[in-house]
Amino acid sequence: MTKAKRLLVINPNTSKEMTLVIQQSVDDSIKKLGGLMEATTTSADQGVASVEGSFDEAVSTYWTVDKVMTLLDEYDGVLIACFSHHISVKVLREATSKPVMHIMEAAILQSLPLGAKFSIVTDSAHWKPLLEEGIQSILGSMERCASVRSSGMTALDTVTLSVDQVMNKLLEASQLAIKEDGAEVILLGCAGMSQLKKDIEINLGVPVIDAVSAGVMSMVGLLLSNLFTSPCGMYTPLPSRPDEVSVPNQGIMMAYHSGAK
Amino acid sequence: MTKAKRLLVINPNTSKEMTLVIQQSVDDSIKKLGGLMEATTTSADQGVASVEGSFDEAVSTYWTVDKVMTLLDEYDGVLIACFSHHISVKVLREATSKPVMHIMEAAILQSLPLGAKFSIVTDSAHWKPLLEEGIQSILGSMERCASVRSSGMTALDTVTLSVDQVMNKLLEASQLAIKEDGAEVILLGCAGMSQLKKDIEINLGVPVIDAVSAGVMSMVGLLLSNLFTSPCGMYTPLPSRPDEVSVPNQGIMMAYHSGAK
Amino acid sequence: MTKAKRLLVINPNTSKEMTLVIQQSVDDSIKKLGGLMEATTTSADQGVASVEGSFDEAVSTYWTVDKVMTLLDEYDGVLIACFSHHISVKVLREATSKPVMHIMEAAILQSLPLGAKFSIVTDSAHWKPLLEEGIQSILGSMERCASVRSSGMTALDTVTLSVDQVMNKLLEASQLAIKEDGAEVILLGCAGMSQLKKDIEINLGVPVIDAVSAGVMSMVGLLLSNLFTSPCGMYTPLPSRPDEVSVPNQGIMMAYHSGAK
Amino acid sequence: MTKAKRLLVINPNTSKEMTLVIQQSVDDSIKKLGGLMEATTTSADQGVASVEGSFDEAVSTYWTVDKVMTLLDEYDGVLIACFSHHISVKVLREATSKPVMHIMEAAILQSLPLGAKFSIVTDSAHWKPLLEEGIQSILGSMERCASVRSSGMTALDTVTLSVDQVMNKLLEASQLAIKEDGAEVILLGCAGMSQLKKDIEINLGVPVIDAVSAGVMSMVGLLLSNLFTSPCGMYTPLPSRPDEVSVPNQGIMMAYHSGAK
Amino acid sequence: MTKAKRLLVINPNTSKEMTLVIQQSVDDSIKKLGGLMEATTTSADQGVASVEGSFDEAVSTYWTVDKVMTLLDEYDGVLIACFSHHISVKVLREATSKPVMHIMEAAILQSLPLGAKFSIVTDSAHWKPLLEEGIQSILGSMERCASVRSSGMTALDTVTLSVDQVMNKLLEASQLAIKEDGAEVILLGCAGMSQLKKDIEINLGVPVIDAVSAGVMSMVGLLLSNLFTSPCGMYTPLPSRPDEVSVPNQGIMMAYHSGAK
Amino acid sequence: MTKAKRLLVINPNTSKEMTLVIQQSVDDSIKKLGGLMEATTTSADQGVASVEGSFDEAVSTYWTVDKVMTLLDEYDGVLIACFSHHISVKVLREATSKPVMHIMEAAILQSLPLGAKFSIVTDSAHWKPLLEEGIQSILGSMERCASVRSSGMTALDTVTLSVDQVMNKLLEASQLAIKEDGAEVILLGCAGMSQLKKDIEINLGVPVIDAVSAGVMSMVGLLLSNLFTSPCGMYTPLPSRPDEVSVPNQGIMMAYHSGAK
Repeated sequence: MTKAKRLLVINPNTSKEMTLVIQQSVDDSIKKLGGLMEATTTSADQGVASVEGSFDEAVSTYWTVDKVMTLLDEYDGVLIACFSHHISVKVLREATSKPVMHIMEAAILQSLPLGAKFSIVTDSAHWKPLLEEGIQSILGSMERCASVRSSGMTALDTVTLSVDQVMNKLLEASQLAIKEDGAEVILLGCAGMSQLKKDIEINLGVPVIDAVSAGVMSMVGLLLSNLFTSPCGMYTPLPSRPDEVSVPNQGIMMAYHSGAK
Repeated sequence: MTKAKRLLVINPNTSKEMTLVIQQSVDDSIKKLGGLMEATTTSADQGVASVEGSFDEAVSTYWTVDKVMTLLDEYDGVLIACFSHHISVKVLREATSKPVMHIMEAAILQSLPLGAKFSIVTDSAHWKPLLEEGIQSILGSMERCASVRSSGMTALDTVTLSVDQVMNKLLEASQLAIKEDGAEVILLGCAGMSQLKKDIEINLGVPVIDAVSAGVMSMVGLLLSNLFTSPCGMYTPLPSRPDEVSVPNQGIMMAYHSGAK
Repeated sequence: MTKAKRLLVINPNTSKEMTLVIQQSVDDSIKKLGGLMEATTTSADQGVASVEGSFDEAVSTYWTVDKVMTLLDEYDGVLIACFSHHISVKVLREATSKPVMHIMEAAILQSLPLGAKFSIVTDSAHWKPLLEEGIQSILGSMERCASVRSSGMTALDTVTLSVDQVMNKLLEASQLAIKEDGAEVILLGCAGMSQLKKDIEINLGVPVIDAVSAGVMSMVGLLLSNLFTSPCGMYTPLPSRPDEVSVPNQGIMMAYHSGAK
Repeated sequence: MTKAKRLLVINPNTSKEMTLVIQQSVDDSIKKLGGLMEATTTSADQGVASVEGSFDEAVSTYWTVDKVMTLLDEYDGVLIACFSHHISVKVLREATSKPVMHIMEAAILQSLPLGAKFSIVTDSAHWKPLLEEGIQSILGSMERCASVRSSGMTALDTVTLSVDQVMNKLLEASQLAIKEDGAEVILLGCAGMSQLKKDIEINLGVPVIDAVSAGVMSMVGLLLSNLFTSPCGMYTPLPSRPDEVSVPNQGIMMAYHSGAK
Repeated sequence: MTKAKRLLVINPNTSKEMTLVIQQSVDDSIKKLGGLMEATTTSADQGVASVEGSFDEAVSTYWTVDKVMTLLDEYDGVLIACFSHHISVKVLREATSKPVMHIMEAAILQSLPLGAKFSIVTDSAHWKPLLEEGIQSILGSMERCASVRSSGMTALDTVTLSVDQVMNKLLEASQLAIKEDGAEVILLGCAGMSQLKKDIEINLGVPVIDAVSAGVMSMVGLLLSNLFTSPCGMYTPLPSRPDEVSVPNQGIMMAYHSGAK
Repeated sequence: MTKAKRLLVINPNTSKEMTLVIQQSVDDSIKKLGGLMEATTTSADQGVASVEGSFDEAVSTYWTVDKVMTLLDEYDGVLIACFSHHISVKVLREATSKPVMHIMEAAILQSLPLGAKFSIVTDSAHWKPLLEEGIQSILGSMERCASVRSSGMTALDTVTLSVDQVMNKLLEASQLAIKEDGAEVILLGCAGMSQLKKDIEINLGVPVIDAVSAGVMSMVGLLLSNLFTSPCGMYTPLPSRPDEVSVPNQGIMMAYHSGAK
């Protein structure tokens, strides 16, 4: 058995509560792996308290990449713990050959062998077109996706409502996805829904994917197989440039701040 | 750490040599998993010596399902070790809720996070349209696939040619896939090519996927997460029928032979 | 006028009742052809009593191919009389250059000139994803298909319910397909629904396709034009192999049973 | 056996030579049908001498519809004998519920059961995008089409070159389609190429579709099955209008000329 | 500032009322352009009083092309003012290199930067499949289209109902498109709905596209940039032919009438 | 004539030379508009000197949005002058309802009425998959795109090579796109290629789109029509948040820097 692989999990927003929830889910998955992999869960230092759309995604990408680049030397791979087609993944794949995924991609890939059609149950309606665009990019089409269903909750609701109320809203959206849209597998479309996976699965009777756990499991395969991001095409590494000065104790973005113009 | 998961790997043809090659690749992957998973590699008892097209696939499906159904009770999941969109997977997903994959699906899913476009390098030209149909079914479109390239070898060639000759043919087809078709990741389209993975990867400079290893790694995630095939839609279990008589020491297909008509 | 073409129609399951229903529909179509074509309707000798999913399809493929290969010398073409994307067609196209179709393909092709969108009305919900996968394969996309609608009947229902009850369920599903999904043509998605075609058509006011009849009519064109399955690409004939021993009075599958391993 | 069905075949341009070539091919097919169907081959009275693009198609549609509407009462179905996605078909499907097809659609539908991918070999390069648009419309996607290949001939060439020269150009384009594009079946993309079908087929070794013959055979099935164009959706009949005056001895287009404004 | 560009706007039917409505909308847009462009709004001289389907489209194409060819020398570009994928555009692009568009294409292109999904609100249900086919052709797919919704009005209704009644029907269809189909932008699918744009937009709160105005604005960019229709591929100009005789005071179609045969 | 519309054009990198080139092209287009629109061309204050991939795009998005948000009050619309599917557009459409486009989208939309297939000629090979992903997002499919062709130049080449050398490389790539890929219109895939448009067009004989000019022209139509980004779905504005503090003389990104965490 080889030396344990080291995984960096990063919550791209700055919410400490969300980071904690993610960390618990990551730790649960790591425990199952019996020492094959170690994981550190952290978050962006600056940026936005939650990612509610493309504006937030761009801001959080900036600071997430900044943080990851500072820590990257000590890890074998990176998992972005946000259920969106988070741009930081594309950016980091140019910046390093170490495997990088986000949990949305991992959840989709894990669901494919379990049923012909999956649905994502997300919170606000704003995410429907954004996640659909992500699916199109990840699989190349929407054919395997039955639907993206909003549970009608705002971000605030997930915090202020009781667990039962939240679960009822998720169950309702999931059942519509199964009955109306032909979903055979349900993906929980938020890093913060991990704890509800089992209960929802029992209620629905179909497989329910927890994206954080799917992310950890996907990284096991990539890291144990010593795979790496292709240097050809989409993720061609950028040529080094004079303005990429090294700034001690700061991320690469900070280097850009001071060095560029 | 939980009890080790038990994986059944089955070579759907009857070739002992091929089964041995697969077993070595499976054992290599299992070793990396440090006791998380155990695997048994076996083959169909009857059927065809190699799968060269749809006729063979249908025959081998019959006998592979027969064998798997006899052994299934002792395993947590099944991996079909044939690089084709082997129908036995679809059949077995109806017959059991335990996760079932084939190595073609696993290889494709493992490649997706590593580059925007993958190519499959296969042996004879007959496989090009068959594998393309499989990709369409697995991902819902051909968008992520740069090409399926035949190396121009017959099945016989892979046995009679020297390792160097085989590798040169695979390298040539891979380089065309990268240069002409825009491939960023290469999938070796045969269960018997596992040993060549590292050398080809070094030569090409892009990630090369060994499908058997990808299969084992994909099953780790599904089994550790206690996931199961959805009982809705595509893989709805068949209702039990009077003619499914139990026949001691025989597979379910044999039961059909005697009980049906 | 040339010598009458000889068509082999095979019910891929072992149900005598179903074979009889198919035979009636075939005979009705043959009568209209005024001696151009003769048809024999038979069934698999072993396998499954009805095809309810992919497991049954694989079993019935095995025994259907076995039967067809035994009889093939005396016919000019083969029609598989099961409304599914039955794998035996793909298998037989490798095994013979004589034209082979199944009735699902024939029904779809016959409907295309009659309206922009067709819907298939099938019995159980299990068939919806299976038939959709078939359409994708036959036409290359789902664009021409308005929907696959389940009538909510089980296989048992079609036998135990009265003709009126069956027809009401089919009419209801068809009317929803027209009104909700934009269907302009209706395909009856079961070989056993042939007799209801006229009544349903009168009720709906749109063209209704009887798949068995469509199958016979499609074969007329192919056989009179002396067309054959292409030996290139998807249906490349398998090379002959030492284990394909000739076994007197048995189908090719039986030869595999004894000769292989 | 029912009364012979009456088919109207119309060459949408005014070339008497082309009409004769079409008539021979129609008569050959009709002979094979042993009295099941009778056919009249005619042409537009006015319009263009050949259809070389969209401008010609629009002009020829006008006069073809005019001619067909005058004759329609005496026929059971209409075949437009031009290898293009000729608009007159769409127009006539609104004007009558009798089945209407063009030979391009018939050729494509006839080829689908014979191989996974077809190519169309046409004359001038102008037709490549036009025919591709037609395929997209007829099948809903380009997935089943390997390619549309121009033989590099002008319309003039097909008349001035020797038969051998024409056939060599068609063979060359066909062989490229098979080798480079993966074509398994070849469609001759011109009504005037019917006589070359057999020789080309022998040379290529793959099925070659003669579109005129395919058109006659497709109509047999539709007419013997008493099928009709759907009155719903795409081909909804136009409401009658006050300006559709009846003009003796003139087509409906002439009625529009005088009655409208 | 360059000399004012001259735009020919043509209503392809013969309705004087419709031409007037279009002219008002054109004049409103031209006014905003401060002398950059001048426009003449006219109509076909013969043909149909309104375009209700493919039959009418073919007739109106004939006479619209006839009229345009007579006037073309004095204009820099042509706008076909009918909300359909009107064939005259394709025809005219072969006949002249001057930019030609119809208002449906202009409306779709104008809507794309304003939201991820647009819906078209049209009158009768007959237009739904016809417009969907147009979108497929214009964008190459239906991905950006949320839906085509019929308001359930007949052509007669738009004339006989009060403005309030018409607007209520349009609002109702638009609101369903937004709520049920995910539309983010609404396109008014009729040249005669221009005046209602502002009120509907205020009511809906999403951008509403007036197709006539979009047409004028699209032509500004093409004409000021001196762009032209490509002579390659789809719109290859037809070779000149002996039967294209010049007939004084008549359009080119009339020349065909007399010269052809 | 209304008050002149004010357009903000922003080069998302910090290169003063590139900004100047863009400004010249913008000014040329503005001149043609005779006072209808005024434009200011500026650049990001910080970030990257050139956008060579996704990493640079993310960094430049951050600083481009920052700059635009500071200036936005004084403008009616924003044009991002980078030939990529630059994320800043998506971000800004959430941040403001004023129309926002990038020049890649404008160039594609302007090309659609001029030919059936367009090709983009770009510099380095890295851009091929990135631009293809952009086209998929902008049009919903790749159907209208013939190809994305790299001219094989590095960013450095475009500066160090002579104008003749650059043009020869662009011509060569364009001619391959026309001949091999079926391109009918060519898009110059870089903001810095504007000056070469006319010469390339004369050489090729097909329409050549200058993206900066296309961008200005597209904005004319949107601004004169008082159109706005839809507040529904993809670009739903973010809810205001307590940490969006106002920071004098700084962009909104700076506010995030200080206020967030």
